[in-house]
Amino acid sequence: MVMVNEVEAHLPVVLVLAGHDPTGGAGLVADAEAVAACGGWALTIPTALTVQNCRNVTEVMAVDPDAIRRTSDALGEFEIAAIKVGLIADMASLDAVTDVIRRRPGVPVVVDPVLRAGGGSELSTAELVDAFRDRLLPLVDILTPNRYELAHLCRDALEDDTHRAVELMRQGCQALLVTGTDDPTGRVPADRVEHTLHAPDISRQWSWPRLEGRFHGSGCTLASSLAARLAAGESLVTACEQAQAFTWQALAHGWQPGRDQSLPRRLWRLPAVIESATQTLRN
Amino acid sequence: MVMVNEVEAHLPVVLVLAGHDPTGGAGLVADAEAVAACGGWALTIPTALTVQNCRNVTEVMAVDPDAIRRTSDALGEFEIAAIKVGLIADMASLDAVTDVIRRRPGVPVVVDPVLRAGGGSELSTAELVDAFRDRLLPLVDILTPNRYELAHLCRDALEDDTHRAVELMRQGCQALLVTGTDDPTGRVPADRVEHTLHAPDISRQWSWPRLEGRFHGSGCTLASSLAARLAAGESLVTACEQAQAFTWQALAHGWQPGRDQSLPRRLWRLPAVIESATQTLRN
Repeated sequence: MVMVNEVEAHLPVVLVLAGHDPTGGAGLVADAEAVAACGGWALTIPTALTVQNCRNVTEVMAVDPDAIRRTSDALGEFEIAAIKVGLIADMASLDAVTDVIRRRPGVPVVVDPVLRAGGGSELSTAELVDAFRDRLLPLVDILTPNRYELAHLCRDALEDDTHRAVELMRQGCQALLVTGTDDPTGRVPADRVEHTLHAPDISRQWSWPRLEGRFHGSGCTLASSLAARLAAGESLVTACEQAQAFTWQALAHGWQPGRDQSLPRRLWRLPAVIESATQTLRN
Repeated sequence: MVMVNEVEAHLPVVLVLAGHDPTGGAGLVADAEAVAACGGWALTIPTALTVQNCRNVTEVMAVDPDAIRRTSDALGEFEIAAIKVGLIADMASLDAVTDVIRRRPGVPVVVDPVLRAGGGSELSTAELVDAFRDRLLPLVDILTPNRYELAHLCRDALEDDTHRAVELMRQGCQALLVTGTDDPTGRVPADRVEHTLHAPDISRQWSWPRLEGRFHGSGCTLASSLAARLAAGESLVTACEQAQAFTWQALAHGWQPGRDQSLPRRLWRLPAVIESATQTLRN
């Protein structure tokens, strides 16, 4: 018998609750890839299936909420070190997702509030946004909205991002990492993007070179890599910084299959060819 | 603006039609990982959702067959270089899968005939096996059964693997890579496993050191890495050899989350930590 892996690996496990995107640019396949690339192992529970391509989302089919619960219950043998939540398609899925989170108290929860597809399709409703704020937000350790999502999640018409973040923290969310790619503020130079961490005793900004093109899956990549870093035990600030660096690199190495959005390559550092394994192993 | 990836990458695309496994050991997430690890890009269309863990599969929920067709139709911007088929849960899914394949003539088709879960649950029926043989087999370029699956796919009670393979080739399947891990023949030493390629003018055997333990997702890993190698333009024999070497390494680097089956680590060669990206990029 051969045991190459004699020291038993234990990987930090991230439970992903998210939609499935057949392109692999975003959704649970992208989440699993980001988690793996950051040294973790992803369990994935689909909350919805979708029909989409690199232009837009044309259909969202919510998964049976009881199947979401049963799938989670079956995974008891895994020690879960972080939870990442993506697309929630309807009220029943929202309830199932909050049930799954409540059954794992103390596990850090990263939520990417997916409200709109890259191509512009609305993926949420006013009723669902209200329920998201009332029921899910109090369970969130860190929310990763872009500026559009931040504005839409606030009940009051606040103009300033910091005030908006403070309002969402009052609703029970522990921290926010607000990305500024989608809607740069006037102060940021056109060739930079700025992301901001808001937490009760922390306010921290990062500035990155703006990348050319439009990307499909940048939000999923950021939130999942952040969850993986938290699962590995990193501090919030370090995990936020590392997740941004990882996402920037995955986008910079992206590829464009057609004429629309580019897809991130989260495994850009992986040598693509299995050159030598055969020679080593053949008798 | 920054463009790191100045030479536009074009990745060989594999269309995966398979079940979803929440553990990530097998199913479409595992398939996507194997394809990526072998230098390709996976599009994934779920044929079924499942409830399972590292012991067994407890539920299989077939996806709406028309959603399978519409999902495939939406992906027209991708140039597909190979198709990989895994779990097919019922007759309607089988029809949807054959429709998807027929709309892409000339693309190599790798099919892993998933008949039984690692924990022993039957995932197919006699009626479905008959339909698989009659409708799907004539579309298959290479089938990757284990010895149990090979025996169950044959209509006649043949004793010999070569005769069984020849019968399935008569049904229209172009070639078979038969794995011998599950049920070693008497001639193979206990510390080895032997896999055999059967094709009209080729018969080729490989012998590998047997690995300790039981694995969840070895069949998916083999079939998907084979599809990725064919998508990259490799010959059948080389692709079969490289896929076996890749799968052996992924299993050898596997990890065991609980007391049951181990999970393959298909990204074992990926450096886990993003050490330097931040220093390079911060201003």
